[in-house]
Amino acid sequence: MRYRGRLAYVGTFFHGWQVQANAARTVQAAVERALAKVAGADVRVFAAGRTDAGVHADGQVVHFDASGIGADNLLAAVNPRLPWDVKFLALDAAPEDFHARNAAAAKRYVYRFSRERVIPPREALFWAPLSTRADAGLMARAARRFEGARDFFAFSTSGTPTATTVRRVFSCEVREEGPRLLLAIVAEGFLRGMARAIAGTLADVARGHVPESLIDEIFERRDRALARPKARARGLTLERVFYETPRS
Amino acid sequence: MRYRGRLAYVGTFFHGWQVQANAARTVQAAVERALAKVAGADVRVFAAGRTDAGVHADGQVVHFDASGIGADNLLAAVNPRLPWDVKFLALDAAPEDFHARNAAAAKRYVYRFSRERVIPPREALFWAPLSTRADAGLMARAARRFEGARDFFAFSTSGTPTATTVRRVFSCEVREEGPRLLLAIVAEGFLRGMARAIAGTLADVARGHVPESLIDEIFERRDRALARPKARARGLTLERVFYETPRS
Repeated sequence: MRYRGRLAYVGTFFHGWQVQANAARTVQAAVERALAKVAGADVRVFAAGRTDAGVHADGQVVHFDASGIGADNLLAAVNPRLPWDVKFLALDAAPEDFHARNAAAAKRYVYRFSRERVIPPREALFWAPLSTRADAGLMARAARRFEGARDFFAFSTSGTPTATTVRRVFSCEVREEGPRLLLAIVAEGFLRGMARAIAGTLADVARGHVPESLIDEIFERRDRALARPKARARGLTLERVFYETPRS
Repeated sequence: MRYRGRLAYVGTFFHGWQVQANAARTVQAAVERALAKVAGADVRVFAAGRTDAGVHADGQVVHFDASGIGADNLLAAVNPRLPWDVKFLALDAAPEDFHARNAAAAKRYVYRFSRERVIPPREALFWAPLSTRADAGLMARAARRFEGARDFFAFSTSGTPTATTVRRVFSCEVREEGPRLLLAIVAEGFLRGMARAIAGTLADVARGHVPESLIDEIFERRDRALARPKARARGLTLERVFYETPRS
């Protein structure tokens, strides 16, 4: 039978979601190993978002098939077999044709910037430092330029080829909480490196290193060389996967 | 000149505070190494509380002597040279005779219990799991039995000999926040393992494994074999060091 699960993980000590040939420590490998122990057979796990090395998740959604164990029992059995940095938050029976990635209508990623002079160690893995002089208002205004259906080619990493590099961004918003800035991006899909490319460019706008208008120029010229360096993985969290189109 | 610093660290990946002969990764060694790079000379750092392996700190206080660099410059210079899991939160010039440990009037340790079915990974390093059926009221009432000046011999770990095993506990209180229980202990001093011995015994009282009255019995009989197993280090944080006696 098919299961649908919601996963949270600290990405810092994982080489991303996807199983790699070189036996690197990945989230997928850790989850598949724990499920295999419980199910007594190999289990293949599919995730809505294949997060990169160092990226966290609070609401990754996965599906997998396993022989009939009650979802409640499965949750209780599998979590103790997972390492401390990845756990199932929920686990339910799903329709046989549910597919975590194909059925996803949108995802929300949050990028956390901190303008604190010292980020407390207990939160350090989740916040990227940003200059104390970075301008929240400027970042918030510039963020809206990423909204709409646009060609994000220049805001992505080369690699996996995709049929189109156009993606619809439902919202790209910045919330200021004292010295902290939370950038939340809801999009129907994300290209490889897209969230971090947006975050990196907005950080440079907020610092006053580049003008806000550069964003439109990068879109128009489709030139990766114009885009600012990607923000580092530690600030990024996959927060939620939507299975119905969010109202924007 | 003498400096006084406030340190925060995630204890999980350290073998405690104190430098060890076997070159284990300790907080003291990490801080001394970073300070030596900045000062250009060996620096010896003294802490108010020598926390055990795995124990965290939000407000550890230290002192050290270094040649005259402004405290502000020193903070900015030393933090980037420290690993992610330990940082100075503050750093000030101190009187020449200030001694972080000898001058301390009291310390507050907090032990974090979670009765959640799943502890989110991003907080997992700081919360010790506790049965969902554990009784907060029972724990809170039993906690008060640790208050006062008492002989904590049976609630300590053998090892370092001390002149007396009597310690004054100013307050030992439990706060319930939904499924979470925060045990806060303020005492003029803590014997080795004392905070975790108190937490472990209170956890067993809350679970209904032992009666509250066992606490007084352990005090009276001074018998370590009667005490319940120590709670694990991950739940414990040194929150604050007081340099004036707290009003209780």
